[in-house]
Amino acid sequence: MSERQRGISIIGSTGSIGMQALNVVRRLGLKVEALIAHSNLLKLKEQADEFNPKYIGVIDETSYVEAKELFKNYELICGKSALEFSCGLKKVETVLISITGINGIYPLVAAVKNKKRIALANKESIVAGGRIVRDLINKYNSIIPVDSEHSAILQCLSGYSKNRRKVKRLILTASGGAFYDKDIGYLKKISAKDIFHPTWNMGRKITIDSSTMMNKALEIIEARWLFDCKNIDYCIHSNSIIHGMVEFVDGSILAQMSQPSMELPIQYALTCDRLEGDIKSIDLAQDLQFRKKREDVFYAPRLALDIINGNEDLGVVMNAANEAAVNLFEQGRIGFLDIADMVKTLLEHHKDIKVNSIDDIISTHNDIIKKETKCKF
Amino acid sequence: MSERQRGISIIGSTGSIGMQALNVVRRLGLKVEALIAHSNLLKLKEQADEFNPKYIGVIDETSYVEAKELFKNYELICGKSALEFSCGLKKVETVLISITGINGIYPLVAAVKNKKRIALANKESIVAGGRIVRDLINKYNSIIPVDSEHSAILQCLSGYSKNRRKVKRLILTASGGAFYDKDIGYLKKISAKDIFHPTWNMGRKITIDSSTMMNKALEIIEARWLFDCKNIDYCIHSNSIIHGMVEFVDGSILAQMSQPSMELPIQYALTCDRLEGDIKSIDLAQDLQFRKKREDVFYAPRLALDIINGNEDLGVVMNAANEAAVNLFEQGRIGFLDIADMVKTLLEHHKDIKVNSIDDIISTHNDIIKKETKCKF
Repeated sequence: MSERQRGISIIGSTGSIGMQALNVVRRLGLKVEALIAHSNLLKLKEQADEFNPKYIGVIDETSYVEAKELFKNYELICGKSALEFSCGLKKVETVLISITGINGIYPLVAAVKNKKRIALANKESIVAGGRIVRDLINKYNSIIPVDSEHSAILQCLSGYSKNRRKVKRLILTASGGAFYDKDIGYLKKISAKDIFHPTWNMGRKITIDSSTMMNKALEIIEARWLFDCKNIDYCIHSNSIIHGMVEFVDGSILAQMSQPSMELPIQYALTCDRLEGDIKSIDLAQDLQFRKKREDVFYAPRLALDIINGNEDLGVVMNAANEAAVNLFEQGRIGFLDIADMVKTLLEHHKDIKVNSIDDIISTHNDIIKKETKCKF
Repeated sequence: MSERQRGISIIGSTGSIGMQALNVVRRLGLKVEALIAHSNLLKLKEQADEFNPKYIGVIDETSYVEAKELFKNYELICGKSALEFSCGLKKVETVLISITGINGIYPLVAAVKNKKRIALANKESIVAGGRIVRDLINKYNSIIPVDSEHSAILQCLSGYSKNRRKVKRLILTASGGAFYDKDIGYLKKISAKDIFHPTWNMGRKITIDSSTMMNKALEIIEARWLFDCKNIDYCIHSNSIIHGMVEFVDGSILAQMSQPSMELPIQYALTCDRLEGDIKSIDLAQDLQFRKKREDVFYAPRLALDIINGNEDLGVVMNAANEAAVNLFEQGRIGFLDIADMVKTLLEHHKDIKVNSIDDIISTHNDIIKKETKCKF
């Protein structure tokens, strides 16, 4: 059976990545076996009508009654188990995990254990899951990252995937977000409504995370586990043409470039192949802009590098602390620059943490979110 | 026997590439079996004393008496046969062909027939040799290019080398040389003594060829045969950090970057491996500068693309016409802009040429050089 006939399960189909994935599915004529979304039932119904999956999952339990009516022609699963059930379906070969948040860890673990191919767009499961998830992955399967930066690195490693000794460092590019050049006075006044991204069109939380450089911090930890490599660096590349690079021990760098469109890494992850798409070629008459790091203000990536070289179990703390801080920022309870400060403080507070299981990870995460979003920072 | 113990033969050891190759040999402790040079006996003696090869070759026959005295402790070959003899030595595994000019075709053919691994820094043999040399190579062996652009493309193709269907285009970068932005009045007045290169430290002819964009034209034809691919493009990248790229059918580009040092591609070609060297990492806080093509004035690459898509036997004419034109330019007999015009005129004149053998190629080349450098253009 060819790639194109094997089924795909999309977990998070009504989100930004999920919708772009369905563009790829439509263009390539792939087969969708299951669509899972949180609670956007109208969008999910529209998708179901077009792609005709056998299974529909609705994560939000309060939507059950309405969903039952809307999806009476489908096999419907409601609640948290919707996250896992599609990972065990026989006709599903590839699972795209494109929900955000720590809950991504459930389908990830289920898909790994069922030996599915995993196209992973959920960062939190890897960042928080750390060593424990990495060991699971190594035991059963491997993951194809959907993040443009990690997809880029995977493409650059092609031909060297089995030989990490040849790699000097993995380099993630960061646009720097919309505010990297702004002075401290300006940065202090930024509120949630001011947030936008200069080059990428993405979901809301990741757009905030990009502005604070916390997105790059999380990606550094993600790269550490995805590629089992500790030599990770990042650089500020304003116009987001180069998405990731690998420097080899001989001083040669391979870089992957493309238009800043998520459809390319999604397609690469879903098909494990290079297929013709409708991504425009990049204009090779424009400069590729790089600038100096500004780590005195945007120090989040440095926190991530410290984790990699210190207590690696702190990944779960960094992820949860940031999620809590972004919540507070969105509610106007803390300022833009407080986000990184809060993460730093919580990392210090939990510096000796040990996590030993998936349950440990989830409860640590939930404890931090609960505690930190209750009190005012 | 490991790579490092098998012998290397360096044809053109006293030239720019040859000397840089010996830096690599020194650093990695490789074994030199033969050193061949044209007539720089003092430099060759110095190299022989350091690297202790068994064989010495001196191409210039008029140097025979002096060479016999200097190299009495070595096995010495004089004259044109010095080009070929080292390609048949049993202890030689890799032949570096780093002489310039059409004569590179002799050691290339000899090395191919003896199934040696060939590190090729000689463009003319491929550009003029065209289909005939390509067929020979495919029959016996493969070549590892030393040219930074082609080495870059080879590195980007790693993992896709057997699947050309996945390649949309090969992209050579060109610095544009020192004069790409100058106005016509300025360009008309450039004389041979004005020629320099803004980023690369190279031999004299290739520096002139870079200024006229004829180097890129020759490299386009070289890439066509080396990678057996007709979809070739180039772009103007002023600061020479990216050396070559491959665009795949999905719109993704892989690019190879490094400091503009020839030691990296030389090392890659000599060892077929990524080994630690002393090439500095590139500074990822500087812009990578690209600009628009200026093909109304610098149209040489266009001539090459026309050859690829038309009568491919014209490679020998382009190479010879350019060599003749550069000679005339160096003698002050034609101007800077006349070089491309002369090549264009001669391509038109020979547009129906057919070449059927190596002898054909050599005689066509010699006829053009003889005829065109005799008369004033």
